[in-house]
Order: sequence, then structure tokens, then C-alpha cells
Amino acid sequence: MDLSRYLEERRLLVEQALEDLLPPVQRPPQRLNAAIRHSLMGGGKRLRPILVLAAAEAVGGQTSPLLPFACAMECIHTYSLIHDDLPAMDDDDLRRGRPTCHKAFDEATAILAGDALLTFAFELAVRPVAGVDPAIQMTVVAQLASDAGIHGMVGGQMMDMEAENRLLSLPELQNVHIHKTGALIRSAILAGARLGGGSPEGTRALKRYGEAFGLAFQITDDILDEVGDSLVMGKTAGNDRKRNKASYCSLLGVAQAREEAASMVREALEALAPFSSAADPLRGLVRMLLDRTH
Amino acid sequence: MDLSRYLEERRLLVEQALEDLLPPVQRPPQRLNAAIRHSLMGGGKRLRPILVLAAAEAVGGQTSPLLPFACAMECIHTYSLIHDDLPAMDDDDLRRGRPTCHKAFDEATAILAGDALLTFAFELAVRPVAGVDPAIQMTVVAQLASDAGIHGMVGGQMMDMEAENRLLSLPELQNVHIHKTGALIRSAILAGARLGGGSPEGTRALKRYGEAFGLAFQITDDILDEVGDSLVMGKTAGNDRKRNKASYCSLLGVAQAREEAASMVREALEALAPFSSAADPLRGLVRMLLDRTH
Repeated sequence: MDLSRYLEERRLLVEQALEDLLPPVQRPPQRLNAAIRHSLMGGGKRLRPILVLAAAEAVGGQTSPLLPFACAMECIHTYSLIHDDLPAMDDDDLRRGRPTCHKAFDEATAILAGDALLTFAFELAVRPVAGVDPAIQMTVVAQLASDAGIHGMVGGQMMDMEAENRLLSLPELQNVHIHKTGALIRSAILAGARLGGGSPEGTRALKRYGEAFGLAFQITDDILDEVGDSLVMGKTAGNDRKRNKASYCSLLGVAQAREEAASMVREALEALAPFSSAADPLRGLVRMLLDRTH
Repeated sequence: MDLSRYLEERRLLVEQALEDLLPPVQRPPQRLNAAIRHSLMGGGKRLRPILVLAAAEAVGGQTSPLLPFACAMECIHTYSLIHDDLPAMDDDDLRRGRPTCHKAFDEATAILAGDALLTFAFELAVRPVAGVDPAIQMTVVAQLASDAGIHGMVGGQMMDMEAENRLLSLPELQNVHIHKTGALIRSAILAGARLGGGSPEGTRALKRYGEAFGLAFQITDDILDEVGDSLVMGKTAGNDRKRNKASYCSLLGVAQAREEAASMVREALEALAPFSSAADPLRGLVRMLLDRTH
């Protein structure tokens, strides 16, 4: 399959859906709507929504009824970036090569834009999905909230912050990442599997895929931060090192980190073994993580 | 009926439910859990959750299955206070007579505590409620998200911020309040009515009650800010005036503002006319708003 074409098609689908679902920018409060669009429509690979759709496809489900839910994942991801970039947090001026929300607007607007996006995500997530039992959808939304919250992403952000200027062990670093980035990625894949009508075994396999994907994602992100150039990443390379933050590279070295990532990718592919070619996009996506680092 | 006893009983019920539902403070990240508890368990009247329960009672519904949903309203309210108090927003040091979250902890922790509470609110709101059709519950959660978000509370916060140091007209001020505080209060009442199994007419009547309650709440809050003492309010009186913020008192004068509040209370009571004594708590609650200002 042609992965880059698949990704490009899906990205456009997600961006069109976001455009259709977002309140019009002319609607008051306009400054808040503008700030939301600045961050939400400012590029990005749309990885999490694409994972929702690809996981649904892998279990033979329809994808278009899942677009609002997929967009909810992007809203949660974007809100977390907006708040993470704030002066009191990572204090970043650039994101995807453009001014961060509080730089383009102001801090208060950025806080509220993040709050609005997080709230909007749940408005989208509870939209009835054609063919899905509302009781099952509520369970999926509960899982999403759990993965995005104190026992998932927000908890991971807090752990990450507390870990700054402290030397983490590898298991500690792993624990931060499992929460900070892994939980939402796994949640996207699991949601796609369940809303797409996956069997219990299929869903379990995709959960395993999701966990391995999340770790591979973080390790390769660390490698890119160490060796990648700022243009590709849209943010300043070597950021983590400057902040004395532990990373897979600082703990393992680049070569060993690459090994570790490759082993996670193998695990993810193994989890997909029982699936037909309908899972090819998921196969391509996890292989791509590794390819980026070469 | 003995309103203060009713309120005290309900307050304890809600606080016990919050205590039971919250993650234990020993669980990592402990600092985040401590910050959440500092703000969530730091007093407060628990008005919004009590409104959920009282509205369910008014339509003859059970209240105890609604406790998690009622607690979700308190989580949303508390997160909004934490973020509103931040230096980039209202920059308040005291809340309910205690240090605000960013003062007791730090800014980053306060931002994350707010994010965690907002996310947790939706985790609670989608918990299956015994006797309620999941499809109806999803509609109620969607309405809650809308009322808490850009077209409701968050939008209202933004309008409020933009209005600082600018002279608002009365309709403009009304519009800010309908969004900033009114939307969530109305949402609590409407959710109680729908989850409690209210008829379409009963629900419509409670919606009218909720809108009038929200306005009465805000006008009487303005009056208390003007004439009340800091002890009763747990925050500094005259805050709004110092900030050159328009208020019902600055626009109408205290006497006329009291008239306006009384008229809203009458409207709320009229909306309750078709209801039996099961709506007495709602009747008492809205009368109480006015009594506070004398």
C-alpha cells in the first residue's frame, strides 16, 4: 500500500471534519475562536485521529461515522500542547514552526483556548456514532477521559515536570512516557477498535499494538530530538538535552535507543499478525516511526 | 421545609461522594492529587451538585444514582475557579478564605490540576446511571459540554476578560453572565430534570427556572460584592469595583439591582408553579439567593 498517500488522504479528511465541526471564527468570542483555530489548524500530522480510523478499519469497521470522535482526539492533543507550551510549563515560543498560542495571543487566552478545546473534545466524543450502542460508546468515552486525565496524560505531564533536573532511571522514564504520550495514543487505537465493532480478541490485540506503538513513538521522538533537525520537527532540536531532561538517548545512547525502538516496532507488528491487509495502514504507521530516525 | 438542614445534608452527601470518587491522595502523582483535593475539598456550598439532585427530586426522580454526575458539576466548577484565579487571569491569592491553588502549590500544578478536574468531570458524567437510557445520558453530557465550553462558561470567561476596563451596557453585562455563570447553573438543573426522568413539560419548566436562577445568582453575587463582607464571601469584597468591572450595582445601583434580582426570583418561582412540594428545595434555594443580600 502507498502509506504516504493514505496518510495524506486521511489528514485532509480529518482537517475537513475539524473545519466543519468547529464553531465559525466569526462567532463571538472571536478572539477565543481565533486562538483555537491558530493552534488546532496550524499543521500537525493528525496522528491520533488517523489511528482511530485505521484501528476501526483493521477490525472491518466503517470510518466516516467515527470522524467526530477522531477529531475529539486531536482536540485533546492540541489542548495539551497549548497548556504545555505556557510560560509556567515548558515556556515554548514555537510549535510546528509557528508562534505558540500564548505568543500569538496572550496567556489568558491560551489557557481558555485549551480549556475550550478539552471541553469541546467531550462534546464531540459523545455524539451518537451510527451503528454503535450508546452504552458501549459511553464506556469508550470513560476510557478516553481516564487516559487523558490524572491516571494518563495529565498525570504524565505532572510526572514529567517533577522529573526535570533529576536523573531518572529507565523504568521511571518509561513510566512518564507511558502516561504522558502513550495513554492517549493507546486510547485512540482502542477507541477505534471498539467503536469499529472489533471482537474482544481483536480489540485486545490492538491494545497490545497501541502500547508498543506508544513506546516506539516516544523513543523515536527522543532520537529525533537528539539527531533530527529543527525544520523537520518544527521545534528546536536538542530541547530536552538543554533542559537536562532524561531521555532514551541520554540513558541508552542513540544506537541502543534505536534498538529499543526497533524491538517495540516488532512487538507492534506481531500483535497485528492475526489481521488481514485491512491492518496494513497500522503496519505502515508503526514502521514509519522507525524510518523517521534514519 | 427546613432549607438549611436540607442543604447541610446534601452538602455532606456530595462531599462524601467526592471523597469516594476521587483518586486517593497517596497515589502518584501525589502533588497533583494534593492540589486537586486542596481546591475541590476546600469548602464551598456545592450549589451546582445540589441543584442537580434537587431538580431530579422535583420531577420525582431518584437522587443517589445521580451523585457521580452531580460531582462532575462540582469538578467543572472547581477547575474553572482554579484557572480563573491564575496570575494570567484574575490573579487571586485567596479563595474561600484559603490560598488559591497556584499559591498553595505553583502555577504549573494549578494548570494541570484544573485540566485533570475538567477531564475527571467527564469521566464521572459518562458513568452509567441506573434507570437512565444511555442515549439520553449522552445527550445530557453533550449539553453539559456545550454549556461548559466555548458557547457557555469558557466563552463567558473570555467575554468577561475582554470587558475589563470597558464600560458594558446592561445587555452586554447580562450576556457575559448568562454564559459565564448562568450556563453551568442551568445545565445542572436541566441535567437533574432529564436524568431524573422529567416529562418534556416538566423539563421545560425547570429550564426556565434555571435561567432565572442563574441571573438571580449573578445579580445577588454582585450585590454581595458591593455590600457584603469578606468573611461571608471568603473573598475580598469590592473586588469587581477595584478592577473597574461593570456589575449590576455599578450599572443600576444597589437598590435597583435588588429589584431586578427579586423579579428574577419571582420568575423562577412562577416556573415552579406546576410542581408539588417535591420542588420545595428548588423554591427555597432561589429565595435564599435574595435573602443573602439583606
